[in-house]
Amino acid sequence: MQLLIPQWLLCLNHSAEVLENHAVLLNENLILAIGPRNELVKQYPQAEPVDLTGQVLMPGLINCHTHAAMNLLRGAADDLALHDWLQTRIWPLEGALADAEFVYDGTVLAAAEMLLGGTTTFNDMYFFPEQVAQAALDVGSRVFAGITVIEFPTRYASEAKQYIELGLAARDKFILEPTVHWTLAPHAPYTVSDETFKHMAMLAEEMDLPIHCHLHETESEVNDAISRDGIRPFERFENLGLINERFMAVHGVHLSERELRTMAAKGASLVHCPSSNLKLASGFAPVAGALKAGVNVVVGTDGAASNNKLDMWDEGRLASLLCKGTSGDATAFNAGELLLSMTCHAAKALGADHLIGRIAIGLQADLIAVAVGEAPHQLPNHNLTSKLAYSGASRDVTHVWVAGVQVVQSQQLVGKRSELVGEIMRKTQRVWQTRVEKVG
Amino acid sequence: MQLLIPQWLLCLNHSAEVLENHAVLLNENLILAIGPRNELVKQYPQAEPVDLTGQVLMPGLINCHTHAAMNLLRGAADDLALHDWLQTRIWPLEGALADAEFVYDGTVLAAAEMLLGGTTTFNDMYFFPEQVAQAALDVGSRVFAGITVIEFPTRYASEAKQYIELGLAARDKFILEPTVHWTLAPHAPYTVSDETFKHMAMLAEEMDLPIHCHLHETESEVNDAISRDGIRPFERFENLGLINERFMAVHGVHLSERELRTMAAKGASLVHCPSSNLKLASGFAPVAGALKAGVNVVVGTDGAASNNKLDMWDEGRLASLLCKGTSGDATAFNAGELLLSMTCHAAKALGADHLIGRIAIGLQADLIAVAVGEAPHQLPNHNLTSKLAYSGASRDVTHVWVAGVQVVQSQQLVGKRSELVGEIMRKTQRVWQTRVEKVG
Repeated sequence: MQLLIPQWLLCLNHSAEVLENHAVLLNENLILAIGPRNELVKQYPQAEPVDLTGQVLMPGLINCHTHAAMNLLRGAADDLALHDWLQTRIWPLEGALADAEFVYDGTVLAAAEMLLGGTTTFNDMYFFPEQVAQAALDVGSRVFAGITVIEFPTRYASEAKQYIELGLAARDKFILEPTVHWTLAPHAPYTVSDETFKHMAMLAEEMDLPIHCHLHETESEVNDAISRDGIRPFERFENLGLINERFMAVHGVHLSERELRTMAAKGASLVHCPSSNLKLASGFAPVAGALKAGVNVVVGTDGAASNNKLDMWDEGRLASLLCKGTSGDATAFNAGELLLSMTCHAAKALGADHLIGRIAIGLQADLIAVAVGEAPHQLPNHNLTSKLAYSGASRDVTHVWVAGVQVVQSQQLVGKRSELVGEIMRKTQRVWQTRVEKVG
Repeated sequence: MQLLIPQWLLCLNHSAEVLENHAVLLNENLILAIGPRNELVKQYPQAEPVDLTGQVLMPGLINCHTHAAMNLLRGAADDLALHDWLQTRIWPLEGALADAEFVYDGTVLAAAEMLLGGTTTFNDMYFFPEQVAQAALDVGSRVFAGITVIEFPTRYASEAKQYIELGLAARDKFILEPTVHWTLAPHAPYTVSDETFKHMAMLAEEMDLPIHCHLHETESEVNDAISRDGIRPFERFENLGLINERFMAVHGVHLSERELRTMAAKGASLVHCPSSNLKLASGFAPVAGALKAGVNVVVGTDGAASNNKLDMWDEGRLASLLCKGTSGDATAFNAGELLLSMTCHAAKALGADHLIGRIAIGLQADLIAVAVGEAPHQLPNHNLTSKLAYSGASRDVTHVWVAGVQVVQSQQLVGKRSELVGEIMRKTQRVWQTRVEKVG
């Protein structure tokens, strides 16, 4: 048992209230008790105290959409229009390089970057999810690996059926790992058939899994679909029975008010990826409208090839600022709402609010300690919630626990995971950079 | 003499070209030579070599607009509409607290935050510029202190004439300090009279100083001026003879195409402050249009009360992403242009391109070393310019020189300045937080 004694405690248990002089008791992987520091110290004399003076303890951040392995392609395709980005850079690079080794190595780097910045969970969509899960496990992150499906052959699989089979087999392999979770991840309306979507909707029900899918990322995606199908992709998804509380619509840049109301009514979530939408000039997601309609809005970094960071502090801050700017309402998506969206609401989107996203008794101990008074950029501290939302930074995260295991101490990965990451970093400089250059 | 030997050299001397195996020779405050590493090592055996393996050496970043002392108000006024932000929070807080001590302490924190993040120069607008200059000098930053003028009484001065007199006296006091520079900083069209603007335009000519002024920040500023004066503030400024190569228009959110063409023709600069514009819901500055028209576009963080960071990496990245998003052109404001805007072009805006902003022989040695291969978030390195622009971060800056003096080593302030900053940090937590709370 460990007794974490921070200066401030932000449970984000459906509220952004800040507690002082409180402590959190961990028992193995779980949060066993939360209460006034003095009482818990007396009540649990056998617990090992962890002094977090000057720090905030809060739930780990949850990145609701990424392609972690694409960390190896960070900076390989910048300042390009979406079409060129995909067709002249990303697809050729993936075609040449994205094998199991690439996915494992890229995901190790991504998981390490995220953990060191306080992101304890990431929701991934990529080929070779078995390697994604293994990499997350080896680094110490919690992962929602995507059973990713695309209706054309890649180095991973040849057709939808095989993507699904391989994904389900990977899921079986990690069934006993409590930090490895799964989603169904059909790629997009324009790359997956109705038949496959229906099959995946059925699997989601049978296996109680979330579905996450790119949707309405660009205007041309919507217009092309109207030309082809006579209806918008969202309506097609409604007809396929996909829009429900299991569903996470990634991007949703071009969603109408009607569609947002439907999402709210059905309990679907919007995964907002503001950096990627700006960088690829996809447009501005209607976040203020979504929040107003009651949609569960959460945040994702997307992959490093279109961001180019996996930094949830930066991404969340941008989501809030952009919502204020586009709505003309400086009070929109306020600090408390933002912190909840990156923790508590993100867990709900993943169907995991009984497990993670809050500091509450019985939940998994996925926790981070954040320094707020040790460097000039952290001062002063007039309002802790707002401080974390608008000037919080990855570099301020000092300690990280995932399922009660301390994985980061004093801003360094703990134990063997540090050696693993060092090894993959050296390999990236030695091997992957050259391989990417060769593809040109 | 010091011989800096980085792995990569980015001179940003009107180009974003990356050099390898090059070194830079410093002699006291100046850059004495740039050339192939082996040649310089042979040619200057007496120079002390500084090994920067794995690092990029580049010019220090230049923050073209801030109110540094407002660091003490970071987080004290968030999630508020501009009107409430100013009238219910900022002005009462400044009225109660913004004295010489406040300005010195706040500027020390701000200068330290910026230096540690690789911003070697900041262009300031605030009361008590004497304290601004002294704080910058004590911390080791280069500063452009603003001779700030506002047409109403504050704790600093009672009327325009006195603001100017005090400002000029402060300038005289630091006349022998080579890292202390000055601008004329009339606050805004709605707070300064024609008479005062004319006087300042004359002073600018006489003393060869830049003028920097908030302009067209909000739509209501423009509309109110039309109601009052019959013309837009920009046209008023044209009539007053202010729009020329000395002029920096801060914000410029609501500038027309005609106004942008005039700025380009006259050589005026636009200081874009994207975080502040979004956070206060002021709108989206027409940056793509400005670049297309040929305006010198540079970047500022604004003060910490409306940002809430003084982080030029974040601010520049946001400027570029937002330009892509608003223009619908993912190739706009590309990585190289962005890095130039934060260095070389910023120096031009300040009338100081003969002194700073580039690595060139005879210029001041204002330099930073940035780690690009030491942490997972820094990898890989497919394109250095793009890496720095889109995933560069304050935490990656390891060494900083200002006028040849090393002020940051291994991410720590060097020497006495570290003690000073530590002392002001403790005072901020002990004294300033309480004083701000008391104002309520």
